[in-house]
Amino acid sequence: MNKALIRWSAYAALAATLPLAAPAVAQSGSKLDALETRITRLEDMNQIERLQRTYGYFVDKSQWTQLSELFSDDATLEIGGKGLFLGKPRVLEYMQTAFGPDGARENMLANHMQFQSIPDISEDGTTGWIRSRAYVMGGGWGLPLYENAYRKENGVWKISRLTGPFTMYTSAQGWGVNALNNTWPDKFDPPPDLPPSVIYLTYPAYFIIPFHYPNPVTGKPFLPDTDEVGAYAGPPGTAIQREALRTGRMENGTQPIFQPPRN
Amino acid sequence: MNKALIRWSAYAALAATLPLAAPAVAQSGSKLDALETRITRLEDMNQIERLQRTYGYFVDKSQWTQLSELFSDDATLEIGGKGLFLGKPRVLEYMQTAFGPDGARENMLANHMQFQSIPDISEDGTTGWIRSRAYVMGGGWGLPLYENAYRKENGVWKISRLTGPFTMYTSAQGWGVNALNNTWPDKFDPPPDLPPSVIYLTYPAYFIIPFHYPNPVTGKPFLPDTDEVGAYAGPPGTAIQREALRTGRMENGTQPIFQPPRN
Amino acid sequence: MNKALIRWSAYAALAATLPLAAPAVAQSGSKLDALETRITRLEDMNQIERLQRTYGYFVDKSQWTQLSELFSDDATLEIGGKGLFLGKPRVLEYMQTAFGPDGARENMLANHMQFQSIPDISEDGTTGWIRSRAYVMGGGWGLPLYENAYRKENGVWKISRLTGPFTMYTSAQGWGVNALNNTWPDKFDPPPDLPPSVIYLTYPAYFIIPFHYPNPVTGKPFLPDTDEVGAYAGPPGTAIQREALRTGRMENGTQPIFQPPRN
Repeated sequence: MNKALIRWSAYAALAATLPLAAPAVAQSGSKLDALETRITRLEDMNQIERLQRTYGYFVDKSQWTQLSELFSDDATLEIGGKGLFLGKPRVLEYMQTAFGPDGARENMLANHMQFQSIPDISEDGTTGWIRSRAYVMGGGWGLPLYENAYRKENGVWKISRLTGPFTMYTSAQGWGVNALNNTWPDKFDPPPDLPPSVIYLTYPAYFIIPFHYPNPVTGKPFLPDTDEVGAYAGPPGTAIQREALRTGRMENGTQPIFQPPRN
Repeated sequence: MNKALIRWSAYAALAATLPLAAPAVAQSGSKLDALETRITRLEDMNQIERLQRTYGYFVDKSQWTQLSELFSDDATLEIGGKGLFLGKPRVLEYMQTAFGPDGARENMLANHMQFQSIPDISEDGTTGWIRSRAYVMGGGWGLPLYENAYRKENGVWKISRLTGPFTMYTSAQGWGVNALNNTWPDKFDPPPDLPPSVIYLTYPAYFIIPFHYPNPVTGKPFLPDTDEVGAYAGPPGTAIQREALRTGRMENGTQPIFQPPRN
Repeated sequence: MNKALIRWSAYAALAATLPLAAPAVAQSGSKLDALETRITRLEDMNQIERLQRTYGYFVDKSQWTQLSELFSDDATLEIGGKGLFLGKPRVLEYMQTAFGPDGARENMLANHMQFQSIPDISEDGTTGWIRSRAYVMGGGWGLPLYENAYRKENGVWKISRLTGPFTMYTSAQGWGVNALNNTWPDKFDPPPDLPPSVIYLTYPAYFIIPFHYPNPVTGKPFLPDTDEVGAYAGPPGTAIQREALRTGRMENGTQPIFQPPRN
């Protein structure tokens, strides 16, 4: 079992243990302490939402240095199917190499509008998670769905893992006309530190990114469904990719979460 | 006065009684208890927003069983002009009959992106309301505007009423090219338990769904305006529907909220 | 230094002094008082978000009188490049003159969908700020980015400054086909009380509206970058405007914030 797979297993286990409704508070200690903990959780959730929304405003205008400062030193970043980038300096390198130097410029639209966040904070108050979305307007349209993690270091929340597979990606003509597999590891520089942790395809195929939180009413963790989904194996339109559309399921029938094939 | 109308009257009365700014807290009891109540209200608002956003993520991927579990046993659901479905089992039947079995599939995009929520909690802490929106990307575009209700049962919030009339509904070509009346009771199976509680039309006509909350500054409840709006009477393009565009106002001139004509 | 410039200087200074992470609470007073202050800040943030989202719902349906009541008596409003309107009565006059009388009507779509808010409250609890966005669907598409201010008067929050320059504005055909400079002071009636406080252009040029809050991790205020951006000098397509695309920077190289040229 490799590192990336371990990460995702831990992630699935998380959903089963998160508190169901209101955050649990320690039974020990005074009522005042318990209330303070609950207030802190509410503030924490606001803080991690602020990080995620600010990330969006910085992408809009290519503020890469400011953006990289939102990440912890050992953060990981994985956008689309490009693979994993490890550590804050690599986050900055990825952005500046793939999208150009810091600073907005004419003829570029890169709006990353952020919304629909589901924030959670661990019982010890040092880890956070958000499921959320962006609606991207740029050369075309894109819809990343994030499942991110955050860490509180010396009282300050930082992004510790950003994971944003795309639900749909298309040109300015819209998804009624065409839809694209937006990224794969060798599509553009820089190359990732690790291959993608998740193999997925965008619309007209689909991928259900695991939920970090359980069903808010039943408390049951989300189990991905078992329909055919396909997997990334090479650039779209190639024979290997056509074949991959019929393969790639886990033994238990759920969607694949493992190392992609290396060509 | 039928049941559906009673529901909407109660709804309008609500807006007049909601607390104006910060939630009111009981004057009796200790300051500590009062603070706890305020914290609980903030947590409650987060919880009902979580339900609404999770509903969106489940619709995206046809997770109908999981979605139905977000509802109370006696919940009502009313989407577009399709009519009222009564009870959790009917919520599930509606989804699975109208949109297919549980599970995402290829060539289907059903993104229900949720945002702009205005949550409120009753003084006794057991009822909640949200006004919010979805931006739907699927076969085309759609813009439902929700006014939903939530109930806390044994410490767990559930959706007790989902009401989502569409502001605009169009094909993939966009609202600059065409706009459609998206649903009416007999458009697709299953038939509803009750006809629509609200008669409304989508763009290029309009409907102002009553606000559950008063103006946040003046505290005055919202009164719908009195311009011509038309009403649903039959499928778009029929003679009866063209006639209905000029009719359908309440005696007091406000937009109609009553049983639709049955053809 | 004129009034408008003074406003923006104060605004930049603000970002340098806002508390970094959780809102600071007075060290004096009991722990209970400190907790109450933190709860009040959370409620305050909810209230100013409610104002902003309600503003959006009112614009949707031309509820101009209700909308104007969300503003303080001395509020300022500045949308696009139209200039500054001073005071609540002028907010109402602007809306009713530019967009017609109160009330929705057929064939009009003016959805102002609000999201991605970053709320902040001053330490004394009487001033608030939000950075947020709207996604406008009407005759075409538009993307305002707000940096607004709010004031608590007798326990009730009101909008005290609304500032919404457009990132992008286009026809129903979309930004892949065309993009427009949406407003300038003399484009439509009524004329503003003051010229625009900010000179900016929309896509395919750009403008970075200053952030009211510092980087959430480093605490450093945002400094606009120094690339060429151009300035508003006259209607798009005129010789004076083409020339202006190469001018208009402050001495320190940042984007211009000053009185526009008067033709």
